[in-house]
Amino acid sequence: MEPSSFANVTVSTKANVYFDGKVVSHSLILADGRKKSLGVIFPGEYHFGTGEPEVMEITAGACEVVLDGTSETLTISAGNSFDVAGNSGFTIRVAGEPCEYICSFGTP
Amino acid sequence: MEPSSFANVTVSTKANVYFDGKVVSHSLILADGRKKSLGVIFPGEYHFGTGEPEVMEITAGACEVVLDGTSETLTISAGNSFDVAGNSGFTIRVAGEPCEYICSFGTP
Repeated sequence: MEPSSFANVTVSTKANVYFDGKVVSHSLILADGRKKSLGVIFPGEYHFGTGEPEVMEITAGACEVVLDGTSETLTISAGNSFDVAGNSGFTIRVAGEPCEYICSFGTP
Repeated sequence: MEPSSFANVTVSTKANVYFDGKVVSHSLILADGRKKSLGVIFPGEYHFGTGEPEVMEITAGACEVVLDGTSETLTISAGNSFDVAGNSGFTIRVAGEPCEYICSFGTP
């Protein structure tokens, strides 16, 4: 179960706005230096590339994901997560309710 | 000049989504207990009511604001702020680029 909050973090006041506002997130750094972002994805289909590996925990709503280099569609609902390799990417589709996530960057 | 980040805060992982995603924010609590939210406002016109007094610092973009009970339109651009009395409200209009803000709740 994802945390409802993160304590003792540094949060950037500048939002990350992608795809004309269809994806909005805020970045934070934990006390131990790990980086995360908290985001909202509105209905639509979007492709994200990765630099570092990422773990995407879905905290509200649901989405369909196709990892780069694969053809399988993963259905991820709140409470579940998916891993994305570094220097790769994924296509994510959201329909209906906005989907919210916690993205954790780098190897866990 | 608004801070680019807040250190040593607790941030809620659940986003605040208003007006079908036209306004998105994340809430945080500073070490001293003060509450703030970091938000993005997409083009449109929205009315917000207040419980506690609020200070709205615009950190990106610009907006026009009419405080409840007044008829004057305030034009607020990045780097400037406006105060809203408690138990009141304001109408905010954004055109063009998304407008970003830091909202501080309670008497400063």
